[in-house]
Amino acid sequence: MIRVKIFNEFIHEKKEETVKSIYPDGIHNTIADFLRSDDVIVTTVTLDNIQEGLSQEELDNTDVLLWWGHVAHNLVPDEIAERVKNSVLKGMGFIPLHSGHHSKPFKLLMGTTCNVNWREDGDFCRLWVCDPSHPICSGIDRYIEIEHEETYTEPFGIPEPDQLLFISWYEEGETFRSGCCYKRGYGKIFYFQPGHESYPTYYNKDVQTVIKNAVKWAAPDYRVKELICPWVPKIEKK
Amino acid sequence: MIRVKIFNEFIHEKKEETVKSIYPDGIHNTIADFLRSDDVIVTTVTLDNIQEGLSQEELDNTDVLLWWGHVAHNLVPDEIAERVKNSVLKGMGFIPLHSGHHSKPFKLLMGTTCNVNWREDGDFCRLWVCDPSHPICSGIDRYIEIEHEETYTEPFGIPEPDQLLFISWYEEGETFRSGCCYKRGYGKIFYFQPGHESYPTYYNKDVQTVIKNAVKWAAPDYRVKELICPWVPKIEKK
Amino acid sequence: MIRVKIFNEFIHEKKEETVKSIYPDGIHNTIADFLRSDDVIVTTVTLDNIQEGLSQEELDNTDVLLWWGHVAHNLVPDEIAERVKNSVLKGMGFIPLHSGHHSKPFKLLMGTTCNVNWREDGDFCRLWVCDPSHPICSGIDRYIEIEHEETYTEPFGIPEPDQLLFISWYEEGETFRSGCCYKRGYGKIFYFQPGHESYPTYYNKDVQTVIKNAVKWAAPDYRVKELICPWVPKIEKK
Amino acid sequence: MIRVKIFNEFIHEKKEETVKSIYPDGIHNTIADFLRSDDVIVTTVTLDNIQEGLSQEELDNTDVLLWWGHVAHNLVPDEIAERVKNSVLKGMGFIPLHSGHHSKPFKLLMGTTCNVNWREDGDFCRLWVCDPSHPICSGIDRYIEIEHEETYTEPFGIPEPDQLLFISWYEEGETFRSGCCYKRGYGKIFYFQPGHESYPTYYNKDVQTVIKNAVKWAAPDYRVKELICPWVPKIEKK
Repeated sequence: MIRVKIFNEFIHEKKEETVKSIYPDGIHNTIADFLRSDDVIVTTVTLDNIQEGLSQEELDNTDVLLWWGHVAHNLVPDEIAERVKNSVLKGMGFIPLHSGHHSKPFKLLMGTTCNVNWREDGDFCRLWVCDPSHPICSGIDRYIEIEHEETYTEPFGIPEPDQLLFISWYEEGETFRSGCCYKRGYGKIFYFQPGHESYPTYYNKDVQTVIKNAVKWAAPDYRVKELICPWVPKIEKK
Repeated sequence: MIRVKIFNEFIHEKKEETVKSIYPDGIHNTIADFLRSDDVIVTTVTLDNIQEGLSQEELDNTDVLLWWGHVAHNLVPDEIAERVKNSVLKGMGFIPLHSGHHSKPFKLLMGTTCNVNWREDGDFCRLWVCDPSHPICSGIDRYIEIEHEETYTEPFGIPEPDQLLFISWYEEGETFRSGCCYKRGYGKIFYFQPGHESYPTYYNKDVQTVIKNAVKWAAPDYRVKELICPWVPKIEKK
Repeated sequence: MIRVKIFNEFIHEKKEETVKSIYPDGIHNTIADFLRSDDVIVTTVTLDNIQEGLSQEELDNTDVLLWWGHVAHNLVPDEIAERVKNSVLKGMGFIPLHSGHHSKPFKLLMGTTCNVNWREDGDFCRLWVCDPSHPICSGIDRYIEIEHEETYTEPFGIPEPDQLLFISWYEEGETFRSGCCYKRGYGKIFYFQPGHESYPTYYNKDVQTVIKNAVKWAAPDYRVKELICPWVPKIEKK
Repeated sequence: MIRVKIFNEFIHEKKEETVKSIYPDGIHNTIADFLRSDDVIVTTVTLDNIQEGLSQEELDNTDVLLWWGHVAHNLVPDEIAERVKNSVLKGMGFIPLHSGHHSKPFKLLMGTTCNVNWREDGDFCRLWVCDPSHPICSGIDRYIEIEHEETYTEPFGIPEPDQLLFISWYEEGETFRSGCCYKRGYGKIFYFQPGHESYPTYYNKDVQTVIKNAVKWAAPDYRVKELICPWVPKIEKK
């Protein structure tokens, strides 16, 4: 059983009619709906209940945390961002989505700006699979097509990924490293670019498949309770 | 002083009028012309004189080897491919160009198929810079534009690059990892995708800049004469 | 069910009394004995039946191939080494053991010399775990101790591992990257240093645990039948 | 001309007689003495003048920053740590030494704990060169010997290094990844383990050579003034 938690700042869906019409219950609930299964338990958290939802106890009982944020990264308290970072280092899986490239926990874990170049014109977007044998790409053909997406382009201010799984092509001429795997501490991280709030990206079956796969991939086999830097005695000779 | 050697199979330019009209003296001489400088000595070698041109002595006196091959990879003798591989492992720089992804030395050094998906329709192509701070990208703006190129697309059957510098965008919808850095043994390798024989790619100033930069980057500071797996004595205690 | 095949050149055990006394049925059978389980089927192959045992059909029906060779690397036919390499690129797992660092298939897959510095004095050896959260390290404490091993030391002529899992300490003063993970094509590779024929290393419970873990880790979810470099048509616009 | 700045917390040397006797003018001045040359200008900064010494203007005029800290990491203000991090991302080289593995800027840049296991018994230590062809290893033989060092051991809580250059062997049985290269943003980072305050490590000629080499390696060719995440217009079609 994988215990998934989805954080969504949940602002656009309340304030903007277009977004509300696409995700009436919030992006988190749309993602929760396709993730829930016999093997996956899902809980959600938004800015409204972030203190309880991302308490240490909650994180200790989360296998994989998904993160959607955009206009309100700064409203995530620093101590929660740090707590999420440390939970990943202790083994929790972490999947920042779309504008989550600029979320506090992702930036803390990468150590870099995670900046992109961007424009929003609803470009058609095609994500190419670089490694069809990777479990995150299972069930995906040569590429994923998304009718409309926000355009992100290089340079993407990240450390070289451990493995690059997807590269995006945008109809007006850009490319972007849109699916990136990392190990940090004992946790696995997968950044996945699709999911702008103004488009129904999370209803795309292939996007759903990738996120489902990523949850399985990121779920930990091993976790520690504390992050320590211990003094150790000399090893005794036999 | 950097001693560059350019290998070109030199077949298309002799047999096909279009190619001949673009590269009347062969691709190798066009590349040689823009590489030669006060700091760079260039020699060339083609299939016609490959035995002499890529002798061990010649390779020992080469700092960086560029490689253009396409239809005649199989005419490169295995022992020469092996010799080139070993020269790279001893420290020589190596820059396979375009269809050189399928050259014997590159495949030997990568250990993989180096396969691509491909089509040839003269697509407009844009190569995006992933790391503007890398010396190979010096002098290049956000991207390089090439009027017409052969289209290569993912999956590209290579080991994850040590650093990915360029990603290509093709007007009909593909992307490709088109500038890839590797260290193998003591040698540096840079694969660079542009350069189909039917288009005047090597006259493109940005393409020339990248190749000039790559030559400087790949030139060795350190080389060994032999590749050995030596027995060593116990280190004496003081 | 994981279908494991163990190749052992099987020469030392027939010619040298010491080795015979440790591994009377050959190293392959000792490894087979601890690997066999409800989930793992094991077959073995030696130089004596290498043509049949490593036929294409056999490899197509192997999930993970273990490889032990030392004095007779050159007796492995080139076409078999190439076949093994290609099977890995198509998805088969591959675990070269100890002096298998110099086996033909491993060298082909790495593209480098895989040279080491070495001496054989029966040093006490301790392998430190770099990432306790990796599935290959599951069940191992901070380190593995081996009473006597052959000493390998740096520089180890390999590409930078995708992930380094073990570093060896030898009592007379050396270190070595002794557990190295790679992805090549669609196959996973784990090089593991312990296992000199003169010492009973494969009876060490921790060594057995690592090899069992590595088999599970390297078993493929995805395989292809052919390695192709296909022409592809333009993607049709909608 | 490379402009080096050395930060040293400068506490042990003032409070502990042993340390004072080894580094009477502080570790920073000992390092400065061997780094200064016709090509290298050195300035130093300690906790006493950290606000002025690590001001934005000073960092903008620093090519490579070395960092020695141990007991007073917490006295480095967060905004200065952040400023150093951002300067590295903009291109400045960064060389954390020894217990600087736990310095705020290094931890920020790595995104991980950077924890180690450790003990202090003055062990003899030998650092093995993994890649003699790397410019940081230039002039070093197979290994570096240090009479007495603090012992750090695995697991070291860092992201997999871009390249691992040194592995340490300690006489009582440990190993450690003691020379690690990273690129983060546009800056190069080299972590180097030797340098405990109680031992005269920075008088060791080989240690000096490595640090001198690292300074040259980390000095930037390229820097940006700002870290931006810009909106970009559609690229105009020709």
